[in-house]
Amino acid sequence: MAAETQTPPIRFGIIGCARVARTVSRAITLAPNAVISAVASRSIEKASLFAKANNFPPEAKIYGSYEALLDDPDIDAVYLPLPTSLHVKWAVVVAQKKKHLLMEKPVALNVAEFDVIAKACEDNGVQFMDGTMWVHNLRTAKMREFLSDSERFGQLKAIHSCFSFTGHPDFLKNDIRVKPDLDGLGALGDTGWYCVRSILWANDYELPKTVVALHGPVLNEAGVILSCGASLHWDDGRIATFFCSFLSNLTMDITAIGTKGTLNLHDFVIPFQNKEASFIVNSKCVFNETVTSWVPIPSAHTVTTDIPQEVCMVREFSRLVGDVKMVQSLS
Amino acid sequence: MAAETQTPPIRFGIIGCARVARTVSRAITLAPNAVISAVASRSIEKASLFAKANNFPPEAKIYGSYEALLDDPDIDAVYLPLPTSLHVKWAVVVAQKKKHLLMEKPVALNVAEFDVIAKACEDNGVQFMDGTMWVHNLRTAKMREFLSDSERFGQLKAIHSCFSFTGHPDFLKNDIRVKPDLDGLGALGDTGWYCVRSILWANDYELPKTVVALHGPVLNEAGVILSCGASLHWDDGRIATFFCSFLSNLTMDITAIGTKGTLNLHDFVIPFQNKEASFIVNSKCVFNETVTSWVPIPSAHTVTTDIPQEVCMVREFSRLVGDVKMVQSLS
Repeated sequence: MAAETQTPPIRFGIIGCARVARTVSRAITLAPNAVISAVASRSIEKASLFAKANNFPPEAKIYGSYEALLDDPDIDAVYLPLPTSLHVKWAVVVAQKKKHLLMEKPVALNVAEFDVIAKACEDNGVQFMDGTMWVHNLRTAKMREFLSDSERFGQLKAIHSCFSFTGHPDFLKNDIRVKPDLDGLGALGDTGWYCVRSILWANDYELPKTVVALHGPVLNEAGVILSCGASLHWDDGRIATFFCSFLSNLTMDITAIGTKGTLNLHDFVIPFQNKEASFIVNSKCVFNETVTSWVPIPSAHTVTTDIPQEVCMVREFSRLVGDVKMVQSLS
Repeated sequence: MAAETQTPPIRFGIIGCARVARTVSRAITLAPNAVISAVASRSIEKASLFAKANNFPPEAKIYGSYEALLDDPDIDAVYLPLPTSLHVKWAVVVAQKKKHLLMEKPVALNVAEFDVIAKACEDNGVQFMDGTMWVHNLRTAKMREFLSDSERFGQLKAIHSCFSFTGHPDFLKNDIRVKPDLDGLGALGDTGWYCVRSILWANDYELPKTVVALHGPVLNEAGVILSCGASLHWDDGRIATFFCSFLSNLTMDITAIGTKGTLNLHDFVIPFQNKEASFIVNSKCVFNETVTSWVPIPSAHTVTTDIPQEVCMVREFSRLVGDVKMVQSLS
């Protein structure tokens, strides 16, 4: 990590003041290779209040328009927590302004939109990353080790993933995530995003052959998904199911079952605790002689860290941006 | 429980020497209101060996035919662990012989067959119970309390259940559970039975409106299910999914999600330990201010007991049989 101390920190501009921007702003402040340089909102007052409320450094600039921030030459990278319907428009502008892009999930309303974003980033030589924090948790690397262990876990056969929370009446009426013109994917884009990611992650990002929506999704009056699920199928018999909802208690489960082991956790998106995270390892358990108990009993594997997952994410993104900048400065 | 000590214990005859019969035999021995009176196999040698291997009381009778045991007037109840394809035939005979019936699951190959069994039991005034042990675990009553708690759990919205184990090559070739003429329901009848039961249990036995098989079940060459799943749907939006398999590591999960709480456990069919069993209670958890941890952290609720679930099952069945006998003796 010597490079981190030798190269200057990546200078972030934040476009939009969504609630999630608070968490990522704090992570940028905590990451050793990143710094907050500016924040923009359509209202300069809102941007100013946001900067104060989140303890931005005094030198951070406040902009009353996204364009002004994007024209600032002292910004390396942009964190974009805007509503999903605005992603493709602003992501393309960010890329054209040669700013690297850390974008909140869901990244786009559909694949075609994301292809436009990806092409803009590639054409302009900027790094892209989506804001899925849990994959950067140190625990996730340990879970990957377990899933990749042919002796302890074997071959993946089935995975179930669930992310739900109970939206308050105000959320279900007014949040951007239930508005067709803002975050039209609803619960599927908000919580289902994590479920799908966990399933693809467990499958080493091999896409399924078939995806079947579960019967009877729950929609609001505007047709936005409040609760749904699906099953995913691979040719070799591997299967996945997920359930995502704005109408069910806060739940963040993964159960991944291999031929020799099972992985369980109940806090995969946001860990129960900030500085440690656990998962349950069940490997080659059998029953006792009278078939009345297990040998061995599955046990928790705990990973401790001083670096929360959102900081790991910003650090990794900034490291990649630093690499890109270095390569570009040499060419 | 004074009645248990005043009335003589229920005298059990066991028909068939399946592996599961060992567990239930031991439970009959341990139940305070039950006793093993006889065992029958098609081979008297096999029955004799089984009695010795499982420490049957010396006065237990050994029969070389099922009929002989059923003609014994000193038998009150029969435990029937025969292959499922034989259930309807022998259950009807058991009932006609006025023996109460504790029958191994799955109880029948289809509903029509079970209707015949239920009618025979009703016509002959004998008690029926299936051999699903976990519903008798003291933990299950505590879980029921949680699911019924409108403040801690709220209204059930979704449940996922999974029971799988990896069958050894010999199991997958020779076990009765992979033979179409013996236990033709395969993994669905063997492990899926428990999943379906847990789903119905969580739904207070309200039947779903729609059941949809998941795409791509895995069958063996004879067409018996080795791995499959389904989703179940109720009119009010409640949803359930399950996965059952002979091809995936030993896993016994329930995740039940309400509007205010979530129940998790990983050993619902056979508890990890004989004398205590836990489940995880997640109720009205929220995130901390920075959305980086949970408050409160879900916690384990542990139930300790001196009476293992299989003994609870035999004790409850025997109590019911005792009640039936008392009523019949008075009429």
